[in-house]
Amino acid sequence: MFYTFFQYNWQVRDEWLEWCKQLSEEELIKERIGGVGNILNTFLHIIDVEYSWIRAIQEKEDIAIDFSSFSTIDEVQSLSETYRNEIEAFLTNESIGNRNAIVTAPWMEGEFTKEEILHHIIAHEIHHIGQLSVWAREMGRKPVSANVIFRGLF
Amino acid sequence: MFYTFFQYNWQVRDEWLEWCKQLSEEELIKERIGGVGNILNTFLHIIDVEYSWIRAIQEKEDIAIDFSSFSTIDEVQSLSETYRNEIEAFLTNESIGNRNAIVTAPWMEGEFTKEEILHHIIAHEIHHIGQLSVWAREMGRKPVSANVIFRGLF
Repeated sequence: MFYTFFQYNWQVRDEWLEWCKQLSEEELIKERIGGVGNILNTFLHIIDVEYSWIRAIQEKEDIAIDFSSFSTIDEVQSLSETYRNEIEAFLTNESIGNRNAIVTAPWMEGEFTKEEILHHIIAHEIHHIGQLSVWAREMGRKPVSANVIFRGLF
Repeated sequence: MFYTFFQYNWQVRDEWLEWCKQLSEEELIKERIGGVGNILNTFLHIIDVEYSWIRAIQEKEDIAIDFSSFSTIDEVQSLSETYRNEIEAFLTNESIGNRNAIVTAPWMEGEFTKEEILHHIIAHEIHHIGQLSVWAREMGRKPVSANVIFRGLF
């Protein structure tokens, strides 16, 4: 079930990244109210949080994204794909393992379970995508569908 | 895992409903861009979709909510609690059963699996809550946290 939600998030993310190609670079980085403040940074934040937590689960060192080095959707797409290959391999090959294993992160106090962090990553992306959908309407544009059904996931 | 996501959604929803008590009735129904168009209807829509699909899974007749008969957060809270008691009993007592059982709905074409619909309900609420968080910031107010962690759910 975790994996299906990841697939859902990735499919929706890919559709949004394609959707963004109709926007100017100016629109991508235009300051907006709420969320991560602009469209480009919202995607970088989603990708960053997912990858950082997946690395934390694997007890690997954190790799920070330098947000300022990204200015186009192509660059964001490329980052998303690179990280996804790694995450996909982890989620499918090694499987989840002990769901109650303790996870800690260098950027945050606290001890979490692996299961908890997987839930957190999933909800985190859906939440930010919801914010994008409001910004899209504010720009007079139709957002990508958030439906889980009709995606061929099941 | 399904149940934990429902618990997360309910906890977040309850916090948002409490949060709404600082708003005037005018603010609750003020037309906003994106999503379901206003705050009150967003909650009614979330509650409606969750309950309708849970009934569809149980092969029970659909019960439509008359949105126009709700004007206060107390009324919405009361509806949310009434339906939740029923949904909670279903999710915990009968458990999920056959995840691949086919689900159909009178308001929509198509055949889905039970598992698919449970994913759909979960993502649906998180998505709309993300929209609320943008509207909150547009009102100059701090939204409820969307974090899964730090909620005592695990």
